Amino acid sequence: MLEDGLALQMGGRVAPCRIAWRLLGPDGAPVVAALGGISADRRVCAAPGTGEPDGWWQGVAGLGGALDPERWRILSIDFVAGPGGSSAPAQPASGVVPLLTPGDQTNALCAVMDHLDVGRLHAVIGASYGGAVALAFAADHAERTASALVIGAAHRSHPMATAVRVVQRRIVADARARGDEREGLALARALAMTTYRSQEEFNRRFSGHGAVRADGLRFPVEDYLDHHGRVFAERFDPASFLCLSQSMDLQDIDPARVRAPVTLVAMVPDAIAPAWQVRELHERLGRGHRIVEVATSAGHDGFLTDVETFREVLASFLAASGNR
Amino acid sequence: MLEDGLALQMGGRVAPCRIAWRLLGPDGAPVVAALGGISADRRVCAAPGTGEPDGWWQGVAGLGGALDPERWRILSIDFVAGPGGSSAPAQPASGVVPLLTPGDQTNALCAVMDHLDVGRLHAVIGASYGGAVALAFAADHAERTASALVIGAAHRSHPMATAVRVVQRRIVADARARGDEREGLALARALAMTTYRSQEEFNRRFSGHGAVRADGLRFPVEDYLDHHGRVFAERFDPASFLCLSQSMDLQDIDPARVRAPVTLVAMVPDAIAPAWQVRELHERLGRGHRIVEVATSAGHDGFLTDVETFREVLASFLAASGNR
Repeated sequence: MLEDGLALQMGGRVAPCRIAWRLLGPDGAPVVAALGGISADRRVCAAPGTGEPDGWWQGVAGLGGALDPERWRILSIDFVAGPGGSSAPAQPASGVVPLLTPGDQTNALCAVMDHLDVGRLHAVIGASYGGAVALAFAADHAERTASALVIGAAHRSHPMATAVRVVQRRIVADARARGDEREGLALARALAMTTYRSQEEFNRRFSGHGAVRADGLRFPVEDYLDHHGRVFAERFDPASFLCLSQSMDLQDIDPARVRAPVTLVAMVPDAIAPAWQVRELHERLGRGHRIVEVATSAGHDGFLTDVETFREVLASFLAASGNR
Repeated sequence: MLEDGLALQMGGRVAPCRIAWRLLGPDGAPVVAALGGISADRRVCAAPGTGEPDGWWQGVAGLGGALDPERWRILSIDFVAGPGGSSAPAQPASGVVPLLTPGDQTNALCAVMDHLDVGRLHAVIGASYGGAVALAFAADHAERTASALVIGAAHRSHPMATAVRVVQRRIVADARARGDEREGLALARALAMTTYRSQEEFNRRFSGHGAVRADGLRFPVEDYLDHHGRVFAERFDPASFLCLSQSMDLQDIDPARVRAPVTLVAMVPDAIAPAWQVRELHERLGRGHRIVEVATSAGHDGFLTDVETFREVLASFLAASGNR
């Protein structure tokens, strides 16, 4: 746990900030930072031999995975303003959501690196919101990483993704105003799931008929939406959600500023960072950067569900970045 | 205006029902029924020479269009339970939405045809919700039409489209419960717009930066979402919206039952009736049916925005169906 001062880039203020971090792996091994989606935390994988529960990227990371804590030192943080152990910037005014950018998260990561005396990362790896942070890191702190792996994220939020997140935030804000924030968070998460998963997956899993009940019709997909909504609403509070959701929409990286070598992973399909957008980013990055396209039946969440595929993606990325 | 008894297919009850219809065009010309999305009404196009405002399909239909009221008799209805002049089935119980299917709308159309002594249509043409109705017509009343043109619709709602509509209905139901139904309808419509329009269109029109204001950030796409939400909320009431939205999810046509020759139009892309689903329907319909794929930059709403394209689609369909 680090107590430090963190300057919000867009807000301009320096906010006192507690940053919860975790570093796992043998002394002297190269340090790799790994960051997941807004609901991920600093536990990327279980510490070997401890019997602790799986981390959010277990399988891809963890003992025997591509990011093996016996070979690499895995560094991660709980996102600033997230549901974990890090603190959130104070609200600038009542009802106004702090202007926290993915770049602000890179400052938090750098503060932890300073604290741990880690000068330079072997790689910063991020997926979804963490991918936006990893790309921001490659722009703002290029000298502090040898490479970046950016999965399911791009230089900006495209307006369709922003539109669906705007609706999610309004659902939560409306529910909060009427004192029903759990239900609002659950419904917003239900909506988010339609962007994290693919038509193909939904069609395979939930194609049954609606059931007529006394209180109205219920469709098979509703159990899934409600489950994910409930789990999310138990962990997140509205302020965290509003801040991190908006933070995704504040991603704004000029590709010309990216100086660390980046490998982009476009998942096909992906409603959050569609392949056309990741390809556009790759073109604008210019020479010295790579793009990998990965077919997934899950959609944006493919980095979580397609463990074998992403084990290979990471193994090949780490092997290549070892040769630099 | 027709006062008649309409039996709800799924509900099983016979409900007294007023059906508002419109028939435009010269006596003796072949009758074509045309039905649009849930917010369309019986005014497909303006009556020539009257100076009345445009109908919902003006350009594609109307004087000089493919569906010209000087050449065809254009029949349409306000959807049962819709915001127009037709009535709605009574709610089976407080808070429960009536089980109105697209097939129920075909019964309403048949009742109007009986009333007008129209034995058989030259074609039934429908897009979006109207497309679901046109397909149901080709299954349930095949003997009453020579052909059907089904645009942006399929035999079932796929679970991703259902999921987004479930969220829309919950937004409206929650807002209604707290006495704020206009705002709920507007937000539900804002969400619906993200399924009616394409990423490409949003990216072209709304890629500007968010503006920092005293009450928080505002993104360019929000003006668009709010405008469409407001216009919709002024016209629709929650009961209409809940019933027609759910009706889309009750579409359930066994392709083997479709006996009138159908031409399917898949728009690419279309989040409501994706091309993969329309192709699947085409395969399952078997011989004697056609599929046309139309590229559109707008998405599902392409049948409204791409006037030239759909003028050609309709002209070629009407010419071909004339040769049967």
